[in-house]
Amino acid sequence: MNDSSKKTFKPKARVAKGFRDIDAAEIRGIRAMLATIQGVYESYGFEPVEQPFIEYTEALGKFLPDQDRPNAGVFSFQDDDDQWLSLRYDLTAPLARYVAENNQGQLPTPYRSYRQGWVFRNEKPGPGRFRQFMQFDADTVGSANPAADAEVCMMAADTMEALGIPRGHFRIKLNSRKLFDGLIKLVGVEGSENFERRMRIFRAFDKMDKFELPEIKKLLGEGRKDSSGDFTEGAGLSSEIIEKLVPLISYMPGNVAIATKKPTEPNFGGNSKDFSDLQDDQKIGTQNSLALGYWAAMLHQFDCSWDCNEETLVGYKSLVEMLTLIHQVGYSDCVVFDPSVVRGLEYYTGPVFECELLMDTKDEDGNTVRFGSVGGGGRYDDLVARFTGAQVPATGFSIGVSRLYSALKLVGKAQTSNTLAPVVVLVMDKDRQGDYYAMVQKLRKENIRAEMYMGMAGMKAQMKYADKRGSPLVVIQGGDEKAAGQVTIKDLRLGSQLAAGIETREEYASQRLAQVTVAEADLVTEVKKMLQR
Amino acid sequence: MNDSSKKTFKPKARVAKGFRDIDAAEIRGIRAMLATIQGVYESYGFEPVEQPFIEYTEALGKFLPDQDRPNAGVFSFQDDDDQWLSLRYDLTAPLARYVAENNQGQLPTPYRSYRQGWVFRNEKPGPGRFRQFMQFDADTVGSANPAADAEVCMMAADTMEALGIPRGHFRIKLNSRKLFDGLIKLVGVEGSENFERRMRIFRAFDKMDKFELPEIKKLLGEGRKDSSGDFTEGAGLSSEIIEKLVPLISYMPGNVAIATKKPTEPNFGGNSKDFSDLQDDQKIGTQNSLALGYWAAMLHQFDCSWDCNEETLVGYKSLVEMLTLIHQVGYSDCVVFDPSVVRGLEYYTGPVFECELLMDTKDEDGNTVRFGSVGGGGRYDDLVARFTGAQVPATGFSIGVSRLYSALKLVGKAQTSNTLAPVVVLVMDKDRQGDYYAMVQKLRKENIRAEMYMGMAGMKAQMKYADKRGSPLVVIQGGDEKAAGQVTIKDLRLGSQLAAGIETREEYASQRLAQVTVAEADLVTEVKKMLQR
Repeated sequence: MNDSSKKTFKPKARVAKGFRDIDAAEIRGIRAMLATIQGVYESYGFEPVEQPFIEYTEALGKFLPDQDRPNAGVFSFQDDDDQWLSLRYDLTAPLARYVAENNQGQLPTPYRSYRQGWVFRNEKPGPGRFRQFMQFDADTVGSANPAADAEVCMMAADTMEALGIPRGHFRIKLNSRKLFDGLIKLVGVEGSENFERRMRIFRAFDKMDKFELPEIKKLLGEGRKDSSGDFTEGAGLSSEIIEKLVPLISYMPGNVAIATKKPTEPNFGGNSKDFSDLQDDQKIGTQNSLALGYWAAMLHQFDCSWDCNEETLVGYKSLVEMLTLIHQVGYSDCVVFDPSVVRGLEYYTGPVFECELLMDTKDEDGNTVRFGSVGGGGRYDDLVARFTGAQVPATGFSIGVSRLYSALKLVGKAQTSNTLAPVVVLVMDKDRQGDYYAMVQKLRKENIRAEMYMGMAGMKAQMKYADKRGSPLVVIQGGDEKAAGQVTIKDLRLGSQLAAGIETREEYASQRLAQVTVAEADLVTEVKKMLQR
Repeated sequence: MNDSSKKTFKPKARVAKGFRDIDAAEIRGIRAMLATIQGVYESYGFEPVEQPFIEYTEALGKFLPDQDRPNAGVFSFQDDDDQWLSLRYDLTAPLARYVAENNQGQLPTPYRSYRQGWVFRNEKPGPGRFRQFMQFDADTVGSANPAADAEVCMMAADTMEALGIPRGHFRIKLNSRKLFDGLIKLVGVEGSENFERRMRIFRAFDKMDKFELPEIKKLLGEGRKDSSGDFTEGAGLSSEIIEKLVPLISYMPGNVAIATKKPTEPNFGGNSKDFSDLQDDQKIGTQNSLALGYWAAMLHQFDCSWDCNEETLVGYKSLVEMLTLIHQVGYSDCVVFDPSVVRGLEYYTGPVFECELLMDTKDEDGNTVRFGSVGGGGRYDDLVARFTGAQVPATGFSIGVSRLYSALKLVGKAQTSNTLAPVVVLVMDKDRQGDYYAMVQKLRKENIRAEMYMGMAGMKAQMKYADKRGSPLVVIQGGDEKAAGQVTIKDLRLGSQLAAGIETREEYASQRLAQVTVAEADLVTEVKKMLQR
């Protein structure tokens, strides 16, 4: 009845570039993983809340959290009223809008919430890099208390443990945007005209776990040519300045714990009296004390200490307050200060966090690689203020769900499904579908997944179907069986057990019968018995 | 450090028009509801699968399922490669693309799957009508067997029961696009030039539960002016034809069960021998036999019967096959033929289904209204063929999740959350946050939701916070308590119980103490005790 023109054009059946379909095994695995994360967040007292997938473009703001560049990477479009809308690129910007919109006392202060959901990026996809991916966020909005930052880090640590990754196999790494602001002042690259140079410094820090010291120096200075001849522009710092940074850029992520001696003792001077108790490793733990020492040693090169400028002092104080709580509650072995963490420094305003998995895995070429980051976050005190003008301090942590699930699969910690494929009742006589369907209903009522074969093909196709489905059993009732009031139940797992070399046919057959014929009244009992073995 | 220009423009904090935020209570309620639906679908042997939110625009096709008009109502945009993409407007079109893309034996045949997810419409929003809403679909692809249609209807019925809506309070209504095709031939409005007239006929049928017979006749004929003077164009059928339709349009939805006598016996002639056994009510049940009689009586007016044309015959045969299975398995009281069901007739190719809730509720003006449809579906044999050219018969059912949840809430069947708000440990001394946090951790380890107050305000604000959160208890340890090794636990529910008039203060106080002070070592034990009462 339709205009028949739609029949002439045949679109190609292909999933859009950068997107993917998700199969049953992954859906069940991720479902279990999400339930575990949710359980941890609920126990921490965070409450679920959800914002829509689409916001006014202006509400989402100019920056992506992990990209320090304008949001070309956002899917935007106009509605029928010509209003510009965008698909959310993260879960934080919509939350900021939500809090700003409901700031007349509708929400408790602080407002502690969590949410999971798909986000979208209009970017070039790559291997394992999709344009739709899931995040799981928790945020505390309305508190400037460093304890709130410390808490989301500890919660991330508890989450990893709940997912089966023991301490020592992951690390929640901490740094502070404020410390970097102080560093920028020290090396003299403030101002909007130096934006690109600052970005290059941050990118050089981000390479500290990949490159040796001389290469990092090149990135901070005149630039670096890689083995393929590609040139990376440098930040243009003088060699004098770069040498002063050496104590800091000598830091190798993950090496703090095995450092044999404390770096140059910081020279605490000026108004540093308030926090000279840092010298006491007992307060923040040895490892974090050592790591902070790298930064202190760098400051020493500039003939100053934590009070060298306001930014450094503020960053330092909040870090020590976080680390003190973290140490006292027993997380300083897995929530650690790491001066190499550079993360969304144009987006976050205080502490920044990153969750790194330390287990080695193999890459596509069989090389051993560290899996790396599966989530991160930080303090974003300006995001609500964008709307209201009033400062609303906020901090949060975001897990990359798809990435974490890949990691769990790689290290064998993904929860595999214990959902059994359904028992299939074959259709031996099309006129008796009602009888077969009644058997299926009986099985379902006893919580056994079951189905009648729904196609219209013969016995061979039906067996192939059941095999493809991974069905444990099929139920058969032909004319003879019907006449005798019986059903035959066939165990399909025999073949696959043999194929997997688990048992010999003899061993197997001695323990179980591949096929039994029983009275129809005993169908449920027998199926239950066969499923249990 | 950012360009400060972004601080000068303040976007308004507002959720985009037609979208909404979802609060914790609804998230928990929907979560429970989805788990119930999922349980039913899993028991039926359907497997989860998910397609992405975004598809190539051409892959989504031209028609919305419930709208019979080109897809102006779809959000579309171009990616960085200038490819046109669209947000999915339902879950069926992406499934069709998925099956067409994986039709080289990757999937079992038939392929039975389910999925839940948000879909998007670029349409004018209205009260309770959003541009983002959730659907929960189940589909059997690759089977022309009417049993597959019958099954999704019975599964929808089981789902309603599992959600607490007993039989008699809902109805899965069945009709057939094929019967309508036959009717269109009978009244002579085939051809693309008659498209709009056909639409008007369908819309008239859709009004059968709202208007009296004379008004329906006007809609089928010259048109109808409503009480406000608005004119609705008619389908332009002659009065002679309209009179012949009277036996059918006299059908009042829901009235079949109370019909006192069978309508005019159909005159089975021609090659009707094959299905003359319809006369036996035992086969499809009395109610469905009566309902089919309305259509038969109409055919009789045209001096023919079910074999009047091929479309009618095909539609009739598949309906009888469905209804026979439905009756035999015991669902003919709640899965019923209903000749007034007009649903996506430009989209579906065979049977169409609709799930209607029969419970009366009040509308905004306090009038009693029937809640109506919470889901539907049908057979869509052409959707995969759009891509491959090869016919892949398919049928499915889609639940409107948000709408069903609203319905469950209205009739008091929504699962309310049994998640308790967290116990709040107050911060009496900021320097002792580590101690308070350690208490919180102890509670969490015993599966008690707990949190330390994360703001930086005083006692009064903290109590207000706990109250706003709905916390059952707060834990307080000031200097004196610390010195004595004690904690105070305060029950906040006293106030709300009194406010709700549940108990008098005396009754309440006699049973429980609003506040106790215990040894710190007994914190967990005492909190557990207080939470249990």
